[in-house]
Amino acid sequence: MAGGESSHAVRSTALLKDEVDIVIPTIRSLDFLEGWRPFFQPYHLIIIQDGDPSRTISVPDGFDYEFYNRNDINRILGPKASCISFKDSSCRSFGFLISKKKYIFTIDDDCFVAKDPSGKEINALEQHIKNLLSPSTPFFFNTLYDPYREGADFVRGYPFSLREGVQTAVSHGLWLNIPDYDAPTQLVKPRERNTRYVDAVLTIPKGTLFPMCGMNLAFNRELIGPAIYFGLMGDGQPISRYDDMWAGWCVKVVCDHLGLGVKTGLPYLWHSKASNPFENLKKEYKGLFWQEELIPFFQSTTFPKECTTARECYIELSKQVRARLVKLDPYFNKLADAMVTWIEAWDEYNPTGEVGSAAADVSGGPAKGK
Amino acid sequence: MAGGESSHAVRSTALLKDEVDIVIPTIRSLDFLEGWRPFFQPYHLIIIQDGDPSRTISVPDGFDYEFYNRNDINRILGPKASCISFKDSSCRSFGFLISKKKYIFTIDDDCFVAKDPSGKEINALEQHIKNLLSPSTPFFFNTLYDPYREGADFVRGYPFSLREGVQTAVSHGLWLNIPDYDAPTQLVKPRERNTRYVDAVLTIPKGTLFPMCGMNLAFNRELIGPAIYFGLMGDGQPISRYDDMWAGWCVKVVCDHLGLGVKTGLPYLWHSKASNPFENLKKEYKGLFWQEELIPFFQSTTFPKECTTARECYIELSKQVRARLVKLDPYFNKLADAMVTWIEAWDEYNPTGEVGSAAADVSGGPAKGK
Repeated sequence: MAGGESSHAVRSTALLKDEVDIVIPTIRSLDFLEGWRPFFQPYHLIIIQDGDPSRTISVPDGFDYEFYNRNDINRILGPKASCISFKDSSCRSFGFLISKKKYIFTIDDDCFVAKDPSGKEINALEQHIKNLLSPSTPFFFNTLYDPYREGADFVRGYPFSLREGVQTAVSHGLWLNIPDYDAPTQLVKPRERNTRYVDAVLTIPKGTLFPMCGMNLAFNRELIGPAIYFGLMGDGQPISRYDDMWAGWCVKVVCDHLGLGVKTGLPYLWHSKASNPFENLKKEYKGLFWQEELIPFFQSTTFPKECTTARECYIELSKQVRARLVKLDPYFNKLADAMVTWIEAWDEYNPTGEVGSAAADVSGGPAKGK
Repeated sequence: MAGGESSHAVRSTALLKDEVDIVIPTIRSLDFLEGWRPFFQPYHLIIIQDGDPSRTISVPDGFDYEFYNRNDINRILGPKASCISFKDSSCRSFGFLISKKKYIFTIDDDCFVAKDPSGKEINALEQHIKNLLSPSTPFFFNTLYDPYREGADFVRGYPFSLREGVQTAVSHGLWLNIPDYDAPTQLVKPRERNTRYVDAVLTIPKGTLFPMCGMNLAFNRELIGPAIYFGLMGDGQPISRYDDMWAGWCVKVVCDHLGLGVKTGLPYLWHSKASNPFENLKKEYKGLFWQEELIPFFQSTTFPKECTTARECYIELSKQVRARLVKLDPYFNKLADAMVTWIEAWDEYNPTGEVGSAAADVSGGPAKGK
């Protein structure tokens, strides 16, 4: 879908336009939406203002959106607002919570439309939807990557019983230009840019963890929503910049237990701004050593058979966090509390079986556009 | 390295030219070597003639090679020749066995030099050597693929304790043009061609099996040689076309146990001939249902701690094949016997600690060229 087509033409071919919400946390400005207009305009946006609520952030004309700042979140969630981070892009969790749609696409405000090697603008959302609508293959690796893609298939030696695949819960997209490095790597390689376009989508195998980045991410909220919580980060917390990692480790172990798939690869977007590595180091330094304990924790996490939904798994996970991670730092007690509060809030806004339909209303209502 | 350069220029930059043998099974002709001349000429070739030994197969001038037909194999191995398949490309195992080098690259005679998207000829062997010389990352997935490649690194959230990686044992390359499909898929999609060049190398995570194709494969013989045995296939056996799959499943579980890495992706070569799907169906049909049992077998295979080498693991694996797979078909008894014979032959030609140096001589000697 070329950027030059009229918005009407775009609209009529937008995949699942009534089943996807685009969740955008922002602290600066929403100017980046201009480039995405041909692709995003048919969809509904949920914008979460991060930081000072008295600052005005304007939304470009013509988009269909809800807009929430911190005051809105506090008013709507009341005491349960404690589970939504402040001064951290993990505030996007609020959008996941109050969405009424089946699918979420979330993107950062410093991410622009990338071009594929032929020079064509990449419709990232369309690719995410394709990833989510086609099955995953977590039990056996296919050497020609996504076997459901046009021009590909399962290769010789791939068991037939596994070729149906499983439902895809998560689609993790990548970034051209500024790669998603931690502060030490940024400091060591300040000029490294990602210029390699790898034309592949693949399933991350069962039992393997990965670093999930929240910049360019889509998921099936109905299947896995309760397990995609970006945690307690930022203001008042000892850590930042691990919100998406935390969510990724949680969601992967839950998907592995439930037999759901996680894909990574296409689509790319263009990540424009390298964040300040010294600032990042301050935010993430505890995470840099905590992760050495967290990975073995997640690698050894198992769920009882009775846990058959993402919600049930997540409650169980909160218990294991409390039992096994508090020795690392008392913060994990707060995080376990927040995980429980998150599920309570989830239950309120997403009564069982009603995802995708009208659940609890956001009392007081948000600012709306269009 | 462009094909137009003089062979002298090529020679002087050939990576590890004294540490690699190129093993080629052939039944037809070696004309395909002409295209590979700029890349292969600095290396030593071990050519195994498959099928009728009275047929003459000529080697293009200028290559440094050993050449073995079935009579040679029988004379050299004596009774142990029973472990080398006849009328099947799995006869290449003989080359792995009698090589004195640290690394093996094996390629089929219907595979030609491919071009990358810029039109440059791909030096497949050079890429395999790079893959084998750089570490693997089997314990955690890196979303920017091979972190050791130029322009890439470990992304945020990748544990630092895992960034050293582990030794790479196997490098599995891919194929443009004719994809490596089984007979049913060939029948259903006779015209499908692989045109997608995926510019990535990645480690297949620990605990995940994959379909290893023998067309374009390299490995570290010193680390893993005894576990890369292509089994008993072809003449006198109930199955063909599963030689590389069998070797791949075996080598992956052994690598997982030993903490070694298996990479897949680049390099591509150009696979020219689609084999006859009806012939293939006849050869592989038992495999098509056996694999449904073999995959769970390999997924549940574990090794005792005492197994600390590929050789020890492979002996243990032969016992498990006999104990757990004979119920599937009596063939697996023969295969377990052959696995033991293979290790006996391996021991003879590769006395402990002497891989890479002069071990047992191939009595009688092969036909040699150059």
